[in-house]
Amino acid sequence: MSKSSAANASEAAQGTTSASGGGVVVRGDTLTIQTHERIELTDVTDRVVTVVRDSAVAEGIVSLWSMHTTFAVFMNESQKALHADIKRLLESMVDRDADWMHNDPDHSDCDRLNADAHLRAMLLGHSLTLQISGGDLVLGQWQRVLVAELDGPRSRTLRVQVMGIADRTT
Amino acid sequence: MSKSSAANASEAAQGTTSASGGGVVVRGDTLTIQTHERIELTDVTDRVVTVVRDSAVAEGIVSLWSMHTTFAVFMNESQKALHADIKRLLESMVDRDADWMHNDPDHSDCDRLNADAHLRAMLLGHSLTLQISGGDLVLGQWQRVLVAELDGPRSRTLRVQVMGIADRTT
Amino acid sequence: MSKSSAANASEAAQGTTSASGGGVVVRGDTLTIQTHERIELTDVTDRVVTVVRDSAVAEGIVSLWSMHTTFAVFMNESQKALHADIKRLLESMVDRDADWMHNDPDHSDCDRLNADAHLRAMLLGHSLTLQISGGDLVLGQWQRVLVAELDGPRSRTLRVQVMGIADRTT
Repeated sequence: MSKSSAANASEAAQGTTSASGGGVVVRGDTLTIQTHERIELTDVTDRVVTVVRDSAVAEGIVSLWSMHTTFAVFMNESQKALHADIKRLLESMVDRDADWMHNDPDHSDCDRLNADAHLRAMLLGHSLTLQISGGDLVLGQWQRVLVAELDGPRSRTLRVQVMGIADRTT
Repeated sequence: MSKSSAANASEAAQGTTSASGGGVVVRGDTLTIQTHERIELTDVTDRVVTVVRDSAVAEGIVSLWSMHTTFAVFMNESQKALHADIKRLLESMVDRDADWMHNDPDHSDCDRLNADAHLRAMLLGHSLTLQISGGDLVLGQWQRVLVAELDGPRSRTLRVQVMGIADRTT
Repeated sequence: MSKSSAANASEAAQGTTSASGGGVVVRGDTLTIQTHERIELTDVTDRVVTVVRDSAVAEGIVSLWSMHTTFAVFMNESQKALHADIKRLLESMVDRDADWMHNDPDHSDCDRLNADAHLRAMLLGHSLTLQISGGDLVLGQWQRVLVAELDGPRSRTLRVQVMGIADRTT
C-alpha cells in the first residue's frame, strides 16, 4: 500500500483576482489567519463582510474555501463557552490517539501525527456558501463565520470568492 | 471569559429580492417553516422547486441558507423511519445533558439550554448548494431537501438564492 | 406511519448542458463512478479539473452534487491510510447493526438494509462548492476531491456545474 498522498502541482495565486462581464462580477480574495493553538476557533465574519462590500456586488453569493485539509470553515455562534463545547465534542468524536493508520510510519509518509485533524475537519467541512443581498452578507442575528484550526499553530488561508450582479449605482 | 455571543446588527430584508444583468438573474426568496417539536425534520423540496421555477433561470445554482444557528439544511431521503433514525443518531452523537459550558450560567448568557442544538446543527450544516438545469432543480430519484429543527418549536427562515442564466424563451 | 419515501418524478438529463449570457457561462457535466466495495473512497479531482478547464471559465465557482442519498462528496487528502481511517471512523460513528427503523420492514419499504449508509452520507455531505480562478480549480497542495460510496458496489453519478466568467481570450 502506497504511503503517499496525491499532491497538486501549484496553488492558486494569492491576493485579489477579479473579472466581470455583462454586469456580473467575480472577485476573489485570500484571508490569512494565524493560529496559536492546536485546536482553535476564529471568528472571521467581519473580514468576509469587508470583502463582500469591497466587491460592490449587490445580489449574489460568496463561496468560502479553506485551502487546507486540516482547517475547516463553518457557521455558528461566536461565544467562548460554545467554542469550548465544540472543541470538547470534536475530541470525543475523534480520539487523537486511536492508532490511526495515517499516523503509522509503516503505512503513511506523513509525520505530523494529525489523523485526528483530518477527520475532525472532514466532519466540520471545508466549503461554505453564503448569500449576498442588498450589497451585504446575509446573516441571522447570531450567525458568525468561523474557521477551525485542527492542527495548529500555523498560518492558514481562507479563499473568498464573490460572484453576483454589481450595484450599478456605485 | 466573556459570556456573550457576537451578534449582527440587522438581518437581510425578508421577502423576494431580484437583480439581473446580461442574461444572468439573481433572485432571493425566504421560506418560513413553523416547527412543532424540539427536534423535527421537514421536507421543503417542493417549496424550493417553486422558487427555482419562478425565477425563470434555466441553468445555474441555488444556494440554501438557514438563517439560524440551531436550524440545519441538508439532503437525504424523506421517510418517517429514516427521520426517526436521524433523530436517534443526533441524540447519540451529542448528549443533551453533558454539562456543556454554553448551558452554564457561570460561563454563558444564553438561557435556552441548547448547546446540543448548536452542536447537532453544526454536524448537519447550514448551507446547501444545488444545481439548476433545464429550468428545474437537479435531484436524484430519492433526494429531498430537508431542514432540521434542533431547538424548537419555533418559526424558522430558510433563504433561497437562485443565480443563473435566464431562459430567454420565457 | 407511512413506510415509503418521497420520490422525484424524473432526473435531470445526463451528459453536458450549457448556457451563456453576457460573458457568463454555465456548464453542467455528469461524471459516472463505478464503485466496487460497500464502502469505498475515490479521488475524482482530475476529472473535475478536466470539466473546469473544458468550460473555459476563468473566474467562478464549481458546484459538485451527488445524485444519490448514500453517496457523498467532500474534500480531504488522498492517501490509502487516511482513507482506511475515514472508513473506520464512519463505522464507529454509525453502527451498521443498530436496529435502525429504516431497515425494519414493519416501518420501511426499503429492503437494502442501508440505514447506516444514509446516516454516514449525511455526515459527510452531498454538496461541495469549489472556486475557479485563472481558469483552474482552486486547491491547496494536499487537497483532493473525494467521493464516498457508502452502499456499494454501484454505478454512481456526480454532477458538476461550472458557473463563471469565460476567458475571452480563448
